[in-house]
Amino acid sequence: MSQLKRALPLHLAGVASLLIFASAQGADKSSPAFEGKDTLLRPQGYREWVFVGSSLGLRYPKGVEKPSSSQAKSFNNVYIDPAAFRAFSRTGQFPEGTVMVLEILSSDAKAEPGLQGEYEREFIALEAAVKDRRRFDGGWGYFSFDDGEGKLKEKATPFARASCFECHDKKAALDHVFTQFYPVLRAAQPRK
Amino acid sequence: MSQLKRALPLHLAGVASLLIFASAQGADKSSPAFEGKDTLLRPQGYREWVFVGSSLGLRYPKGVEKPSSSQAKSFNNVYIDPAAFRAFSRTGQFPEGTVMVLEILSSDAKAEPGLQGEYEREFIALEAAVKDRRRFDGGWGYFSFDDGEGKLKEKATPFARASCFECHDKKAALDHVFTQFYPVLRAAQPRK
Repeated sequence: MSQLKRALPLHLAGVASLLIFASAQGADKSSPAFEGKDTLLRPQGYREWVFVGSSLGLRYPKGVEKPSSSQAKSFNNVYIDPAAFRAFSRTGQFPEGTVMVLEILSSDAKAEPGLQGEYEREFIALEAAVKDRRRFDGGWGYFSFDDGEGKLKEKATPFARASCFECHDKKAALDHVFTQFYPVLRAAQPRK
Repeated sequence: MSQLKRALPLHLAGVASLLIFASAQGADKSSPAFEGKDTLLRPQGYREWVFVGSSLGLRYPKGVEKPSSSQAKSFNNVYIDPAAFRAFSRTGQFPEGTVMVLEILSSDAKAEPGLQGEYEREFIALEAAVKDRRRFDGGWGYFSFDDGEGKLKEKATPFARASCFECHDKKAALDHVFTQFYPVLRAAQPRK
């Protein structure tokens, strides 16, 4: 884009900026879109949002149950929408309207000779969290777009409080976000 | 930004766009910056680039050596610069000037009651690959900014061919990039 800009006569630069701006507006899919009170439309374009961290093998076992080593582990890639990331970088707080997306992928072991490690294989599911005090008791709503067999729903209603909110409320380090697992967010926080 | 835009009288909108455009230009740190023939300055702002995949426990063992379970495993987060990602999404090819960054983090097991899995703890090291036929025999150069003890160098000279290039040349699925490990890139490829 900068080359295009330099190649244009000055009197057209404003028009070019308007066009580019309009296109950037069109590409901004980072605000949460709701239907009715609290049905969230599936976030779009989130793979170009800011990635904040990945984990492998996240599970919520009851009691002392341990995973068996043969149990399939999934990667969890977490993204935050760019506007919320910029606000967080400036203020250290998650603004109203923050959207975080959790994309879940199957894992596999590298088979290439001379390489070891576990990598991300295929997309499995998609979840999201939205900060919105008007819509959600406690300030955050949690959603799953999982429609089974790797398919995704177009929209989702929020989980009951006990499913996600209570754990995020008790165990997440900052405002219901597990920043203890996200070095990218910790590094972006303004220093006091 | 869209609210700002709507609030402005029309004759100021062009000026606002120019300012916003200039600021977006200033924030574009995605092109590789070289010193002399092939010394790469450390990429900046890459945590806001497009994340393409993470892996855990990547190692390059000699022969049949197996990692012990007590061996510390690291997460490897891989990013591609946004301009290269857009070009790749359109053409299915990595354009000249493509920069890919590999950020390496320590891992730890979740300690919160009721949570299991391995997460990313602290940044350890930074590597990069640049596609540039004029500078690098074979088309790609590979760099490490590791300066020991978690510190990073400001610039780096490329690895010898045998260190990275040969493995990328033989085992990477597409043009020296391990797209077999990066579902985000496979999903972005145009369908034929």
